[in-house]
Amino acid sequence: MRAVCNTEMFGRKLALVSRGVSARSTIQLLGGILLEASADAGELRLSATDMEISIQTTSPAEVGEEGRVVVPARIFNDVVRSLPGGEISLVHDRSEGVVRLSSRENEYGIRAYAAEDFPNLPSFDEGSAFKMSADVIVETVEKVSKSYSRDETRPVLTGILVSFEESRVRMVTTDSYRLSIKETELATNGFDGERQAIIPARAMQEVSRISSASGEEGVEVVLSENQALFKIGDVLFGTRLIEGNFPEYRRLLPSVFEREISVDREELIGTLRRVNLFAQRQTPPVPVSLAFTEGAVEVSVRNGEVGEAREKLPSNAEGEEEFRISFNPTYLIDGVTAVDSEKVRFKLNESLKPGLIVPDTEDEGEPDFLYLIMPMRDPSRS
Amino acid sequence: MRAVCNTEMFGRKLALVSRGVSARSTIQLLGGILLEASADAGELRLSATDMEISIQTTSPAEVGEEGRVVVPARIFNDVVRSLPGGEISLVHDRSEGVVRLSSRENEYGIRAYAAEDFPNLPSFDEGSAFKMSADVIVETVEKVSKSYSRDETRPVLTGILVSFEESRVRMVTTDSYRLSIKETELATNGFDGERQAIIPARAMQEVSRISSASGEEGVEVVLSENQALFKIGDVLFGTRLIEGNFPEYRRLLPSVFEREISVDREELIGTLRRVNLFAQRQTPPVPVSLAFTEGAVEVSVRNGEVGEAREKLPSNAEGEEEFRISFNPTYLIDGVTAVDSEKVRFKLNESLKPGLIVPDTEDEGEPDFLYLIMPMRDPSRS
Repeated sequence: MRAVCNTEMFGRKLALVSRGVSARSTIQLLGGILLEASADAGELRLSATDMEISIQTTSPAEVGEEGRVVVPARIFNDVVRSLPGGEISLVHDRSEGVVRLSSRENEYGIRAYAAEDFPNLPSFDEGSAFKMSADVIVETVEKVSKSYSRDETRPVLTGILVSFEESRVRMVTTDSYRLSIKETELATNGFDGERQAIIPARAMQEVSRISSASGEEGVEVVLSENQALFKIGDVLFGTRLIEGNFPEYRRLLPSVFEREISVDREELIGTLRRVNLFAQRQTPPVPVSLAFTEGAVEVSVRNGEVGEAREKLPSNAEGEEEFRISFNPTYLIDGVTAVDSEKVRFKLNESLKPGLIVPDTEDEGEPDFLYLIMPMRDPSRS
Repeated sequence: MRAVCNTEMFGRKLALVSRGVSARSTIQLLGGILLEASADAGELRLSATDMEISIQTTSPAEVGEEGRVVVPARIFNDVVRSLPGGEISLVHDRSEGVVRLSSRENEYGIRAYAAEDFPNLPSFDEGSAFKMSADVIVETVEKVSKSYSRDETRPVLTGILVSFEESRVRMVTTDSYRLSIKETELATNGFDGERQAIIPARAMQEVSRISSASGEEGVEVVLSENQALFKIGDVLFGTRLIEGNFPEYRRLLPSVFEREISVDREELIGTLRRVNLFAQRQTPPVPVSLAFTEGAVEVSVRNGEVGEAREKLPSNAEGEEEFRISFNPTYLIDGVTAVDSEKVRFKLNESLKPGLIVPDTEDEGEPDFLYLIMPMRDPSRS
């Protein structure tokens, strides 16, 4: 292989593809990036995979001799990024285990691996693709990203349940303590009927990041039986799907509520940030309590080791009797933060029954985002 | 104790003093800040110590009732910093183990400790003080801060040997692999005769940081037998001295050199950053080699696991024969970075004898900064 390319452009593509490399694998090849030089296309193709996700893209190049080789991602990336602008030349002789980089008077020889053993990566079937707007992906993924599970023992909970229903996409995550649902209009109509899949949340966050950075308006999607492919400009992102049954989340959603109370979102976030300092991320968590009285809500944390915090905010709560409910402080602030209306609405039943946090809008009907949260029993109050 | 103060000002003082708190101590009191309210002075005095260093300062306050109490630094700091502007009220009832903070409708009770057991901190004896410019402290400490030892098994090497000789201050550090010496004119003449002390390097860096942030021009210093005190505006910083004998560093400095070669500093730093990527901070370190030939220097790293890097720069080296010398890559870049002239000068003898890195200036005579570095044997070349 012999190719010459622009250092800066190639560096950007390397950095992008490097996010697909396995950081932990003991298989050296998965810590590498497959480079394929094509004379006809006048480009270097860059590919990486950790066997769960894959990223492929291209960088323009003057190709003197075609070839394929796998280079270790980190050192290759670091070297190219640290070079001054200009051109970089890449040479790999199949008889050698080294890729030679040169730029001006600088020469680097980096140990490389044979391309033969690199996994085959998926290709994109334009025919079965449908289109989503990049903004929709970014917005929807962000809303549900707090409540997926980081615990690999129940794989389905580490994913986002993504459902397409005609002109809408719905994403759902739950770690069994809270649940987020976000529905968004697709704004394009390239999809007929219904489809759903459990996509690893980390993969969807990567798709969102690439979409956001790309400046592309549209993202093409192909959902097949065991994988999802996203085409974002000249980047092809693939991910395996998670097998299994997502929890029957609709059954968890209460349909009637004894009280609905709204609080200013910004003020509540400020209050929670301060009072949560007293919860100190302890295990088991120290609960934060909301006590609603006529026109107000008192937010408090009581921690025997540290002390206690108490703040009062206005609310539209009614009735003479105080209603008190306690939550995991991290889960509560996650939910309030995810809402983006000026006021946040709590829809509550009894103190130990799940509650909802939703945007407080004038609209009738179902909100497009909801966050279900399980309360905690507060031992310091009983 | 009852006092009211400006939240922002008090928060800044708390943050400053918190740097003196012990992060690791199992003695809770040393994780605390002593607050002392004085009605006459109209101020709160804040003090912290980890038994090695101490920081004391004051914050204006309306004192309703005098008193002393120790508050845990982290939560206290976090709470005050997170409050909106305005005033904060502090109340401590001696019969209670809690300090009550209130600001608007917000109330916090933070567990506190009795002040009786807090260590006595040093006071400043104006009579025996001399004055240094803050700039001199900042500049001199920075120059020698790379080469003190992080290894506590030889305490003297974790310190900076600070010597005052009439109108000059000299600071020296060594971790036994390299040695930095920086001499600076005091620019004030408040000191007669000679004094020297080994001051913990971390403490001197803290003095430098406080001096730099304070905007003060002058720093007053008192050196006593076992401690040093620095008065920087309204901050009093104390540190114990390190006992023991600092290495006889003058004997290590070669007096004649077989070759003196200058290289552009910026270019060399760029080159070292790139080629050092191949050294990968391995243990034992992979050396970086300098090969000087007529008018040039080739900088290279050869690492069996990763590959090799080779860059060439212009130098004023003379002679037909190549001269090669190898260094620990981190130590070399530290030395080159610490020099601040346009070109950096290497003063070298044989390949396995210590070399000097100094500023390349037109001045005759001794440079005001020098960095001595031990070479490495390069196994890959022998």
